[in-house]
Amino acid sequence: MAMEALRSLAALIDHFHETARWAGTLALLEWDERTGMPSGGAEQRAQQISDLSVLIHRRRVDRCVIDWLDELQEAESRGSLRDAIPAGSLSRIREDHEKAVRLPESLVGALAKATTMGQRSWGEAKERKDCTSFLPVLAEIVELKKEEADLRRVEGMSRYGALLDLFEEGADAEQLGKLFYRLQSYWSGKIDHLAEATKERPRRWSTVEVGIERQRALNHWIANHIGFDFQRGRLDETSHPFCTTLGPHDHRILTRYDRNDWTSGFYSTLHEAGHGIYEQGLATRWHGLPAGSATSLGIHESLSRFWENVIGRSEGFWRGVFPEMRDWLPPEFQSANPGDLALEVNRVEPSCIRVEADETTYNLHIALRMELESKLIEGSLRVEDLPAAWNEAYARYLGVTPAHDGEGVLQDIHWSAGLFGYFPTYALGNLIAAQWLEAMESSLGPMEKILEKQEFGLLVEWFRNHVFPKGRCLTSSQLVEEVTGKPIQPFAWNGYLEKKWAEPLKSFRG
Amino acid sequence: MAMEALRSLAALIDHFHETARWAGTLALLEWDERTGMPSGGAEQRAQQISDLSVLIHRRRVDRCVIDWLDELQEAESRGSLRDAIPAGSLSRIREDHEKAVRLPESLVGALAKATTMGQRSWGEAKERKDCTSFLPVLAEIVELKKEEADLRRVEGMSRYGALLDLFEEGADAEQLGKLFYRLQSYWSGKIDHLAEATKERPRRWSTVEVGIERQRALNHWIANHIGFDFQRGRLDETSHPFCTTLGPHDHRILTRYDRNDWTSGFYSTLHEAGHGIYEQGLATRWHGLPAGSATSLGIHESLSRFWENVIGRSEGFWRGVFPEMRDWLPPEFQSANPGDLALEVNRVEPSCIRVEADETTYNLHIALRMELESKLIEGSLRVEDLPAAWNEAYARYLGVTPAHDGEGVLQDIHWSAGLFGYFPTYALGNLIAAQWLEAMESSLGPMEKILEKQEFGLLVEWFRNHVFPKGRCLTSSQLVEEVTGKPIQPFAWNGYLEKKWAEPLKSFRG
Repeated sequence: MAMEALRSLAALIDHFHETARWAGTLALLEWDERTGMPSGGAEQRAQQISDLSVLIHRRRVDRCVIDWLDELQEAESRGSLRDAIPAGSLSRIREDHEKAVRLPESLVGALAKATTMGQRSWGEAKERKDCTSFLPVLAEIVELKKEEADLRRVEGMSRYGALLDLFEEGADAEQLGKLFYRLQSYWSGKIDHLAEATKERPRRWSTVEVGIERQRALNHWIANHIGFDFQRGRLDETSHPFCTTLGPHDHRILTRYDRNDWTSGFYSTLHEAGHGIYEQGLATRWHGLPAGSATSLGIHESLSRFWENVIGRSEGFWRGVFPEMRDWLPPEFQSANPGDLALEVNRVEPSCIRVEADETTYNLHIALRMELESKLIEGSLRVEDLPAAWNEAYARYLGVTPAHDGEGVLQDIHWSAGLFGYFPTYALGNLIAAQWLEAMESSLGPMEKILEKQEFGLLVEWFRNHVFPKGRCLTSSQLVEEVTGKPIQPFAWNGYLEKKWAEPLKSFRG
Repeated sequence: MAMEALRSLAALIDHFHETARWAGTLALLEWDERTGMPSGGAEQRAQQISDLSVLIHRRRVDRCVIDWLDELQEAESRGSLRDAIPAGSLSRIREDHEKAVRLPESLVGALAKATTMGQRSWGEAKERKDCTSFLPVLAEIVELKKEEADLRRVEGMSRYGALLDLFEEGADAEQLGKLFYRLQSYWSGKIDHLAEATKERPRRWSTVEVGIERQRALNHWIANHIGFDFQRGRLDETSHPFCTTLGPHDHRILTRYDRNDWTSGFYSTLHEAGHGIYEQGLATRWHGLPAGSATSLGIHESLSRFWENVIGRSEGFWRGVFPEMRDWLPPEFQSANPGDLALEVNRVEPSCIRVEADETTYNLHIALRMELESKLIEGSLRVEDLPAAWNEAYARYLGVTPAHDGEGVLQDIHWSAGLFGYFPTYALGNLIAAQWLEAMESSLGPMEKILEKQEFGLLVEWFRNHVFPKGRCLTSSQLVEEVTGKPIQPFAWNGYLEKKWAEPLKSFRG
């Protein structure tokens, strides 16, 4: 490679590494905001986040990036960059630049500020279980997001599609809507039946009171056990669990605790650890560049939902971990057996809360959110009518009605953070997780056997070999196709659930 | 005021407010580094701190600042800025700018990186109680600080004096050295006698084991009780307690816990809360400008040492708080009485550890550090010879020898953070704290009476009225002179200690 191209490439990579460091600082400002920043700090924090978002935006739209890319074009077309930077990186960087320049700095700053204050306002409203004070704040965020969507959308893309593209590049909003509708039709009749079967088995173990200190130790243990590296990460507490990356070797997962249901924090830890294991498995050398970034949110959720559900709710998992795990729980668990626990964490109960929903009803929570958020963004639903629309949708999709806004429209932080178009990635994650399972079993053998031996390292290694290396150099559908030989589709998921529910569904069909 | 001057002033103030927000972000990076950042994050964190230090430095040396000041000069000389910005602000800003431009960006970045990695290396070495691995890191920091000092020093200033000036503007290193020597001569003979008297009273209450959760609750309670506002702050844990400001309404204090000596965390909480109360009392409107900044480190330490010792070790304090405080401690404290506790926390024991030193021997720990650090900076002591020099100095000043480097040369974080010239401000703080006490009593009456009634609010109010309002628009000596009518001098301090030790010293003199 020519000296000049080498210099341009080094400059380009340095630029992205530095941008990633600023992004890591931004992530810390947000992490701190959600782990215990004094309430008095809110206003300044919003301003700090806005300042830094603008700085990062400036680096993303920096004309230098295009100049370097142009200087590299010839070398790339000759194929002489092949060993210097992973294939697909440069075209991704060019696309990202094209997308970023569409947004004016003023909008970036305004969005950062509005969503930081929005999350705080949401938190306060949720505490009060009343969304009145939050709605005008949300209305402002929706207006800004509409503005953003209008600037981002290209030919043939809906406003909502332009926001979905932020999390799942290349996904088609309309097709996704249809996919979710098919899933809903397929499962809605069966759900009633499974819920009936669940009612016959009252809760026994998840309701045993477990002290917070004990839960902390348990969750630390399980996250570490499945492969989350605490030399490069930590586990904290917050009101709405998440995972965030502060640097190539600093990944933080957050959970929450409920004295009266230890499984809630346990499963959100498994979920966030799944995200964390993904982030910790990305190529640190390319941190901040496409090859070192997560493919998409859908792929991210496929990892989190995989560990939370496909693994964490399987009987093999419980048979494997429980003999050891018992010692982290109160003494009465000595008389529990893995089979009972596996059954109990697989209750099918249409309910109001997404994050506590079972796997089978979960996608309905997503489909209804997608319906509502696309209407908000397209303008056919006003924010002031959202609470009523929420309750109506819950009755329609799941046959339940929230007792108050706290377990209704205020349950999720996403919209207050400006995350419209994010929810569908959870359901996509479910489908993809089942596709990973299928592919894994065909090369590693039956999962139950692996889990009984607690060989979690095998699974992490499989992901490291197949899913993590390409980063964002592929889209999610390209990656899934490459790894599983099939496009993203619901068959593996339906098969996975049907296998799980073979017994109760037999009587349903018969 | 002319429209143009008004615009320049607004631009100047905005510029400083934004710089303060970046400084707050930097403080968060450091706070996080010291409260539980995963070890893997160290390298990136050092780079982030360096990036941000350079950004802040660029804002500090920005030529705009001088242009605005020049545009304001006429309005200021006509006196028409009198109501717009506190007197002295603009000249302070000009001086700061002149000092900042002397440092090249490369040195600022290198220092930030070296000291961030330095603190980590120090932490690891301290853990191992062996300074071998830390010495080369420290040597690099010393070289950079020498370079900084050479750039900063003006006519008639020693290298060490140039560093001292960073923390205590206007202080004279040589005079300060003499002052400490006088103090040492005055107290060294008496100390042996007081230590003898101490030996007759074995510890009884400080050695009672108190669980960490209980200590946390106790310390939260006492910090809040004396006036630290938890709406605008928080209390966390770290290995070397400190206080940091993240914004005008976000002040964080950090302490550490020892199961076997609850008074250690208790007094470091009082100390840091004293710093926090000062920061929380500064003019938020002028946050990041001289009028909203602490006068000097000496004044800062006068606040922390005031609450820790003058208040926290007085009998009146214990008589006031103990009846309530008893309930935060284990049951056996029901039989304790305030007088015994006051006596126990006033033991005089020459020891190896500065932060655990009693008030009377404390200044010796400072004098010896000042001796060593000024030699390091002036070049008459090599870093490799420091551990031996440290032990020799401890034997000479205090008659004790550290068992290992952990309680010897590694006990303080300061040098690893590049803080040379900081230590003398602790002893200055002691002297000034006694001067505050004298001034307070002459307007509020005997302190013992106030403390017995737990009227801490009166003291905070006195500080808010007299000490906090001027910020950095005065130097520490100007402020002390203005508030107490006297320069910074050792008489109030000697009088304060002599009153405390009247009984045991009587027999000594006789």
